[in-house]
Order: sequence, then structure tokens, then C-alpha cells
Amino acid sequence: MFKKILIANRGEIAVRIMATCREMDIRSVAVYSDADQHARHVLLADEAYPIGPAPATQSYLNIPAILAVARESGAEAIHPGYGFLSENAEFAEACEQAGIVFIGPSASAMRLMGSKIAAKHIARDVQAPTVPGYNGESQDQAVLQQEALRIGFPLLIKASAGGGGKGMRVVENEAEFLSQLAGAQREALAAFGDGTVFLERYLQQPRHIEIQILADTHGNVVHLGERECSIQRRHQKIVEESPSIALTPALREQMGAVAIRIARAANYVNAGTLEFMLDTDQQFYFLEMNTRLQVEHPVTELVTGLDLVRQQLRIAAGEPLELRQEELTPRGHAIEVRLYAEDPQQQFLPSTGLITSFIQPVGPGVRLDSGVVAGDEVTQYYDPMLAKLIVYAEQRPAAIARMRAALERCAIFGVTTNISLLHAISLHPAFSAGETPTNFLALHHMPATRTSVELPDDIVLAAAIMDIQQDIQTAEHSMHTQNPWQSLGPWRTTGGGRTLTYTYQEQEYRVVIRPTTQRQESWLISINQAEAREVTALAANDNLLIIKTQHSQRTVYVQIQEHEVQLFMAGQVYHLLRTRPPEIASAAHGSSGLQKQKSLTAPMAGTIVKVQAQEGDIVEAQQVLLILSAMKMEHAITAPYAGKIQRIHYKEGAVVQGGALVVEMAEEE
Amino acid sequence: MFKKILIANRGEIAVRIMATCREMDIRSVAVYSDADQHARHVLLADEAYPIGPAPATQSYLNIPAILAVARESGAEAIHPGYGFLSENAEFAEACEQAGIVFIGPSASAMRLMGSKIAAKHIARDVQAPTVPGYNGESQDQAVLQQEALRIGFPLLIKASAGGGGKGMRVVENEAEFLSQLAGAQREALAAFGDGTVFLERYLQQPRHIEIQILADTHGNVVHLGERECSIQRRHQKIVEESPSIALTPALREQMGAVAIRIARAANYVNAGTLEFMLDTDQQFYFLEMNTRLQVEHPVTELVTGLDLVRQQLRIAAGEPLELRQEELTPRGHAIEVRLYAEDPQQQFLPSTGLITSFIQPVGPGVRLDSGVVAGDEVTQYYDPMLAKLIVYAEQRPAAIARMRAALERCAIFGVTTNISLLHAISLHPAFSAGETPTNFLALHHMPATRTSVELPDDIVLAAAIMDIQQDIQTAEHSMHTQNPWQSLGPWRTTGGGRTLTYTYQEQEYRVVIRPTTQRQESWLISINQAEAREVTALAANDNLLIIKTQHSQRTVYVQIQEHEVQLFMAGQVYHLLRTRPPEIASAAHGSSGLQKQKSLTAPMAGTIVKVQAQEGDIVEAQQVLLILSAMKMEHAITAPYAGKIQRIHYKEGAVVQGGALVVEMAEEE
Repeated sequence: MFKKILIANRGEIAVRIMATCREMDIRSVAVYSDADQHARHVLLADEAYPIGPAPATQSYLNIPAILAVARESGAEAIHPGYGFLSENAEFAEACEQAGIVFIGPSASAMRLMGSKIAAKHIARDVQAPTVPGYNGESQDQAVLQQEALRIGFPLLIKASAGGGGKGMRVVENEAEFLSQLAGAQREALAAFGDGTVFLERYLQQPRHIEIQILADTHGNVVHLGERECSIQRRHQKIVEESPSIALTPALREQMGAVAIRIARAANYVNAGTLEFMLDTDQQFYFLEMNTRLQVEHPVTELVTGLDLVRQQLRIAAGEPLELRQEELTPRGHAIEVRLYAEDPQQQFLPSTGLITSFIQPVGPGVRLDSGVVAGDEVTQYYDPMLAKLIVYAEQRPAAIARMRAALERCAIFGVTTNISLLHAISLHPAFSAGETPTNFLALHHMPATRTSVELPDDIVLAAAIMDIQQDIQTAEHSMHTQNPWQSLGPWRTTGGGRTLTYTYQEQEYRVVIRPTTQRQESWLISINQAEAREVTALAANDNLLIIKTQHSQRTVYVQIQEHEVQLFMAGQVYHLLRTRPPEIASAAHGSSGLQKQKSLTAPMAGTIVKVQAQEGDIVEAQQVLLILSAMKMEHAITAPYAGKIQRIHYKEGAVVQGGALVVEMAEEE
Repeated sequence: MFKKILIANRGEIAVRIMATCREMDIRSVAVYSDADQHARHVLLADEAYPIGPAPATQSYLNIPAILAVARESGAEAIHPGYGFLSENAEFAEACEQAGIVFIGPSASAMRLMGSKIAAKHIARDVQAPTVPGYNGESQDQAVLQQEALRIGFPLLIKASAGGGGKGMRVVENEAEFLSQLAGAQREALAAFGDGTVFLERYLQQPRHIEIQILADTHGNVVHLGERECSIQRRHQKIVEESPSIALTPALREQMGAVAIRIARAANYVNAGTLEFMLDTDQQFYFLEMNTRLQVEHPVTELVTGLDLVRQQLRIAAGEPLELRQEELTPRGHAIEVRLYAEDPQQQFLPSTGLITSFIQPVGPGVRLDSGVVAGDEVTQYYDPMLAKLIVYAEQRPAAIARMRAALERCAIFGVTTNISLLHAISLHPAFSAGETPTNFLALHHMPATRTSVELPDDIVLAAAIMDIQQDIQTAEHSMHTQNPWQSLGPWRTTGGGRTLTYTYQEQEYRVVIRPTTQRQESWLISINQAEAREVTALAANDNLLIIKTQHSQRTVYVQIQEHEVQLFMAGQVYHLLRTRPPEIASAAHGSSGLQKQKSLTAPMAGTIVKVQAQEGDIVEAQQVLLILSAMKMEHAITAPYAGKIQRIHYKEGAVVQGGALVVEMAEEE
């Protein structure tokens, strides 16, 4: 076995690979960009080396720099993780030439299966069904358009070198085909350095089913059953599970056999995943092969009891598989959800910033693969996935319940996350029923709009208690510094009590709070002039508050900020604004204040890749004005109302900070 | 299914039961003693009620108080956990009479199997082999002594109502029989309110193998395979695993069948464990039945994929088992170690105090069932187990490696723990080889004496860096307060650097440290005049330090204290004393300064249950002077040298604080 390997990746997957290395007495070598100097994967490695500036093209995609570190450190092998160079055949080849083992398939197998076009040829050779489409070499606009007409709409444009939804577009009708094509090609070029695309029929309500295989250098190939990864947003998976409720044992065996046939035909070695679509008639179609470890590999680990990284390392070291197909019977049910720094309420816009607190769920059958801890910074440069929460239980209903309970014990402050959305999915009857087509979210109008969420009393009580405790502490500890918020602030003394006013969903909550004389940490609190209740705070630390009303206890995770209190309870996040002069309140309120605003700001840091309007233009509401590229995704900046463009502050190629003033516009008279 | 249950327990098991309740939408009701007001299990419950003063007899063993809470809260059932009332048939009966479901066997089955004597009768009825011994009703000293002679030495005295090693003694020869008998009876009476004991042959190097069974109210009984719990200290398990390396499939089936026969014969319902001894000839002997969930149940959960608490709740609610014996094939390998607040270097003396920091290992296949977090107090009143660390992997060697790696990412400050010992076990070749008789620790002279542990350079470097950083921070932040330690302290300026001196194992380490001009957080450090090395601190928080020397990184968990620096690295704990005047150093040094001391202090808080010497007595070295009872165990206070007793400060029955002066003695002239 290797004594030392380099991990050419970052985030949770680098951390997860290192965990297995430690157990196998393999020293791990981390590489890092300038933005990642203090990242988890750097701190947890046995050795760590810088490889370049923050942009991935100059660091995590920088083949010469990574190979130089491998040579300097004496690493015998390189694990590429997923994304970055994991499916880059040139890299695999360069490793080989440098005498370093690439932990994955051979460059030739990767090249073969990495091209979706070649992969489909192989699939056809071994009688694997594929989706109708065009995967010819010509990338001529006219040819592509003609093929699109032949296949029919809706259809999918996909990047040939791609993955993870980058460079992928759904085209609903002929009219929008060319503009979508241009966008997909541009995104593919930016993400993979290759703008080649292919077309295929867009199946209605299909399920995404993938088969994990392992192949060693001795000709043994086994499959480890399936994963269903149907629930997606922006064509990226957010919920994955194994087994799939849609598969019968016979269908599983059939798909597994097809997966093994394809892998064998490609002379594939190491871990790989064959992706299929399954339609409502139980017909499956081979889509593509991922020639690497997948993000969602933990669900397979939990139902098979295997450590896939350990298997990868053993295979790469030339050891034969110890597993026989007949022994590989999945057991129980595993579900993974991806925790992203993004705002589901704003088209899943990535969120950057400092993670001020990360409360991690623990418990039997709960696994958290995380790349971050409190104090870490989420930057614009990389994928906004923070962690993966994975649960295992005897059966699917128990696994869903475990996921729901785990999400209720999870909170992240500092960046906006999709925790509430994931929690809503875990509670959704269609998810429980296993009705999970890839358009699950759209079908069920998720995420729900914020205004549809009611505000529980417990949240108001918790906010008031945290505020009053903070206030007391501040008063006690900062006698010298004058805090204007404190003196002008929201507190008013009202007949022995104090009054605090919060705004949530445009509604005001007036809270009167006074200490009880009987007990410490107990308060008499009235909301909106209702009868006062005795509430006791069983606080455990800065971000945790357990409130007790009569005998009932609720756990609330809280963070106090200058203008608001943020609270997580039971999987839901709440932002309670402290009452302020209305015009400021409006700005602090996010999108609701946008209606007639004159200044459009960059929603996050990134690069302006396209400017689609000019100063003086009259534009429609929702018209795309600029395209901002950040975290490997494109984000459209659109006109909030019909009006006239007065000023555009940046040109294509400009790098902007989050919140930067980008466009000024005015309503048309 | 129940809507609300009461958990009549505390610590990790109460927390663990609540986790399953949350997933099953069952409200959990906690009960707590005055000492546990802020304990984890109280904070995490949906409701919580006080039941009495700290001593368990007045709270967790207080049947009327617990039943009153059950009635007040409307709990439909009570889960007793393990220990406390879990095997108390009167309690089960009282629940039944109160119309509350006891989550466990019927009172009659418990009474039958709870008596080791009756249980052996049942075992014999179903042709289960048992160890030769005496379990007659007569507790007459003479009868017991005669039976002991018949059985032969060494033999075991065990409490009939007992468990967990309480009231258990090994008697090596006839001479010590009566005094050991008295001790066992006294301990049994204190722990269980019943001094009845029985005798049995002490098997040489046996393994402790137990079979987990589940039985429902519909007559279905299955076994879930075995656990091996051979490694013990003070007759209490500290390492448990499943499967056992000593069992063949045929033997497993045979023992499983015997376990099911016994459970059926006792009309047993719910989860239970049949304990066996397995001798070196593969002969097994039924020992006793534990009529409750075991501490070590998680290893069975991991290899079977079941949630045993969920199974218990389903059975108690009258649901039939969904499991068939032929489907219950254990997979992979699981190991549990118990993290105790105790000092293996001092006869496993329990350690009390505030947990100032608890670094918890996480990762694939790692589970931590904990009853405490940083900030919690470990009191003298209850069992000193803090948490259980459980790992799962494909095979036993991988599971051992995972345990070893997890223990290297685990650190607890504030109380002394057995982490280093557990880590040493995980590294021991005999453990790897599966050679695990119950006398494993004694056989391998574990724990090793402290002086046999070498001090790695990295530890000295880490201590120096933490000290200098702390020193700088203190200097920056406390300009007003004069800290005598700081001004008189260990720092001396030496030619541009500063010198700090540590003592470890009587040896001095002189460290010269100065900042490098090139980089922040980098230092040039020389130990004992060796060539200076550049060391960089990649510190992440108060208790974590990652030091980098050249390219190599090491993770060290550190806590700075007034007179010493405590450090965990790679599973080993180190205490580095800062150099002080020699007479103070000696006292701070713990037992090493005890040799000729005049004052004997209570090693921990507890109750003096026996005074065995008088003022003026001339005593031998190691002679027992007093017996202190704390955390349900007896601890002997012995004479450190031959001498004369000058003063005894307490009488039998007195409650003493840890560190209290108990006996004054002098060397004989």
C-alpha cells in the first residue's frame, strides 16, 4: 500500500479522503490555493503546499503545480476527489508520465467514458439502452438546430465534457434554442475549457438512477447497487438515497449487469458510476459515466458497509477486490442531503461570507461529511457546498424521520443555507411516498415563499430573551464604550418591563418582557398584548437557547446581529428585524425593498461575463441586463421593473464585490 | 405507538434514547436530580422534571417520585435505560400498577432472570451449560466458606442482584475469603439494597461473550449475534466488539439457540442479553441474563443495522418483530470503547470536576454516544462514564485502525480520562491478534507506567508556542491587572529569545523560542540547546494547535493551566510542568510527591464507609486505613509507607471533599 498520497482537491471530499488515509497509515499531502490557506483540508493534512492563486484554473486545475508538489513531497499517488481534475484525462496521463499513480481509471478509459458521445457508442455496443439524441461531432449552429428539430422539444443541451449541471440547459421550444445554446457553450467553455455540447430528449418526470461499480486491475468488476438522485435544483442533485424505491430486485440486477458490461467494455478500473434515467414505465436509459468518486458515495457506503475510498486506494495499489457480487446485498436505507451556502428564496444564489457558527447534528445513524467549521470563510471561488448530511436506518420511513430530526439539530450562521428547504423536503408527503421525479421541486412549488411560513410564538420569545440577555451583558461589560444602538435602541421601559418590537413578514410583534422575582433566568413575556407567560431560559452557550414554557422545552439556535435576530428552530430559519425607521427597514429587508429601487447591486462577488444592455436602453421587467459568474455558475442580474438604464458601472470581464453598485436605472415616465 | 415516554435515567443513555424518540415523534420526558439540573439529558428532553437530591437513592432510584412525574406529564411508558431501576422488578411492577408501560420485560421475568440463582436453574432446565458454583439460599458465612472450598480457588464472589462489577470479588485463596466476602456483601448492599452473593469457579483466561436477543409479545424471539466484552478493568467492560473473533459460525448458532431457549423458558419479552464465558477449549457457560438494554448495544446496532431502542419501543407498544432470524446476518465489524473520567495510573480512580473542553472525533464509521459536553460537571454521585466511542468498518483490522485514528482525534480537558489507555489497547498486538481474555490488562501490564512514555519533541514545541501566545495575549489584554505569575514567571529573555523550562518525568526541557522575522506565527525554537528549528503555528482555536515543522503537520490539543500545560497528541496525554520551586513542584506532581508525605488526602469526593485504623496504630506500607465510597465503587486509602497514624480526621459515614485531609501519619523512627 502507498505510504503517502496527494489529494488534489479541497473541501469535504479532501477531508473525507484524509480520514481513510489516517486509518490506513497513509500520509496525506494537501494542496491549497491562496484563498484556502486556513481551510480545513489544509489543517487536517500531514503536509500541505500552496499551488497558486484563488481561481481554480490557477490552482486546483493547475496540473504542473500539483505534479511539482507530488514530486517534492514524494507522494506515490494522487487522489483527485470529484470535480476539478478528477475527470481530466490529460491529468491522469501526466501523472502516469511522472511515475505517480492516478487513483482512478486509466487516461484512455477516462477519455472514452468522459466523452458522452463515445460513452454512448460503447453503451450501444453492449446493448445498453440510451436516450434519443444528437452526439455528432459537428458543433455547427445550423446542424445542431436541425438535430434539435428532429429530436423534438423539450430537449436538453449538455456539455460534452461536463458534469454537475454546468453547461446544461433545458430548451422548451424552438424559439429559445439558439440563445440557450450560446449560453450553454459559454458556460461549458468557462467550466471545462471545452465548449462541445450534445443534445438529447428531455424525459418527462424521469428518475435519476445511478449504479456504483468497482473494478480492479485483475479483471474483477462488481456493482454496489443503485443510488437515486432525483431531487435536484439547477440540475444539481441535492438529495440522494439508496436503495431507490422505484427499483425491483429484478430491475436492479438488470441495471447492475448493464453497468458491469459497459465498465468491462471500456476496460474501466477503480470506482465509477453509470448514470441512467428511469421513466415512469420502468424503462431505463444509459446517460453517461462518471469516472470518479461521486459526491453521494456515502449512501452506498452506508447500505453496503464498505469504505469506497479504501476500496479505491486498494485498487490503485494493485490489490484485487475482496468482494464477490453475491455477498454485496444492500441493507437498510441511506439518504444524503447537500448543505449549500445558497439562498433557495433567491434562485439558489450562492452566499459567501464568514461562517460564524455551525451546529452539527450528531446521533446514531447520522454522519456529517463537512469541509468547514465555524470561523471558516466561504468564498466566491469554489462550489458553495459546505457539507453533506447522511443518515442510515432500517427502512426508508425511519431514514426520512432520522434526516428530518437531524436537520432540526443543524444550524449555520453567517451564510444563508438551504437547510430549511432540505427540512421541508424531508417533511413532504410526496417525498415520503417516494414520488421523486427530477422536477420534484418545481412540481411542488418549493421552496415555499417566505411569507407562507408562520412565526411560532417560541421564536419571538427566544429572540426577546437573547436580546435582553445580550443587553444586560453589554451593559455590564462595556461601561466605557458608548453604543448608540444601545442608548437609542429598541428598548423602552414600560411599567417595570421592557418593550421590544420585531418585524417578520411585514408584521409587527410587540414584546413586553420583565424578569420574574421567583427564579433566575425566568421572564414574564407577553406578545402583542396577549397574557404574559413565564418563560425560563436554559441557555447552554452563545448560539444555543433552550426555552421552557410550563414544562415544554424547545431548542432554538440563535445569533444576534446588529439589526436582526436570526433563529433556527425545528429545521426552519427565521430573521426577526428589530424595528427601525421604515426606510432603513426596507433596505435591510432584502428583495422586498427592491421594487422601485434605482440601484442594482451585485448579489455576490464574481466576474461580469456578459453585459446585455446599454446605457439609455428601455428595458422590460425581468429582462436580463448582465450575467455574473461566481462559484462556477452564471447568475443573471435582471431589471426589477420596466424602465430606463441610466448607468452601467462595469464592463465585461470586470471583477465585482458582492453588493457593488452595478446598474442604475429609473422607471419610465 | 406511544406519544410520550419518560426516561428514568441520565447521561449518554438518556440522550441516546431521546434521539430515537425524536425520530419516532415521541415526546421525551426527562427526570433529574439536583446535581443534574443543567445536564445534557435535561436540556435535550421535551419536558424535564426534578425528582430529588443528588444521591441516586433519593432521585434516580426514587420510584414514587418517578411515577409521580410520569403521571403528571402524561407519559404512557417508561424507559429505564441501564443501571438504576432498569433491573428492579418492584419498579416494573409499580409501573404496571400505575397503568404505565415498563419498556422491558415483565416484573416476573425480570425477577426470575434478575436472580442469578433462579436464572441458572432455568438454564439447567433447558440444558444450557453453567459454571460450577454455589447459588444456594443460605448466606451463612460457614456455609459459603465450605462451598468455596468445594468449588476451589481462585473463585468469584458475585452480588446476586448486581451487575457492572459492583459487589464482585476474585478470591485467590482460602485465607482471604472471609474478608473479601464481607467487602462484597457490603458493596452489594450499598449498590443494590441486597447483600446476597453467590460463588462460582473463576475460569482461567476466559472470554466474555454475550448474546443479544429480542422477544416480542407475540412469541417471536430472535438473537442478534454476539458481543465480546473481554477487556475489563475492575470487572467492568471497557472494550466491546461484534462479532467475536473466537466464534465459528457453528458456535454462534449454537450459543444463539441456547440464548433463545433460555429467553423462551423465562417468558422473556423485550431486549435482553445472555452472558456467557467461553474458555480456551471453546466450551461456553451461561453466566447470567441482563434484563435491559446494555451499555454496549451500539456494536450490535452497527453490525445488524438495527436501532435497538426503536425495537424496544415497538415491542413495548405491542408490535410484532419485523425481523426473521435468517435475515439477521451480522456484517462488518464494530468496536466500542468506554470513555471514563478516571485515572488508569491510579487504580482507575474516578475523576470529578468541570469538563473544560471535549474534542469529539467525527468521520465515516465513527459514532460518539455522549452524555456530556464542555462546560458540564462530572460529580461524585454517578458512574464516571462520559461517553462511548463506537466505530464500524468492513473487517476487524480496519475497525481497530478506525478506533485508533478516532482516539487520536479525541481529547477531554478538565477531568482525567482513560483515553490514553484505550489508545494503547488499540495499538496492542495482542488486541490485533484477537487474544483478549478478561485479564487482558493485567496480562499485558497495562496501563504502562507514566515514566515509560517518551516525550516527543512536537509536544515540547506545542507547549512553548501555546505558552508564548498566551503570554502575548495576556500582556496585550490585561494591562491593568498585575499577574504575579507573569511577572515572576517562567519567562526569561535570553539574547533576543525567551527561555521556558518544563519538567516531564523528572527531566527538564529548556526551550529557547524567538519569533522569525519572515513569517507570522512562526518561531525559531531550540530544545535543550539542540539546533533551532522553524516551527509555524496553524492554530485554529483555544484548544487546538496544528504545528508545522518543515512540511510536516501535527495536530495537538492543548490546555494551558496555571502550573502546567496539558497536551493530547496521537491518543497520548502529556502534562508538562512549568519549572517552579522544587517543594511546590513536588506537590503539583501528584502521586510522585506522596512518598514521604505526612498528610493523606481523599483522592476524590465521597463517603468514608469504613475506618480500619486508629490513631496511634503502627501500620505497614500499603495497609488499608480507610475505605471511601464514591461513584458507586469502593476505594481504599492505604498507607504510603510503614509508619504511625497520628490523626484520623473523619469517622465512618462522613462525607469528604476531594483533596480533604483525612489521615496524618509519620514515619516510624
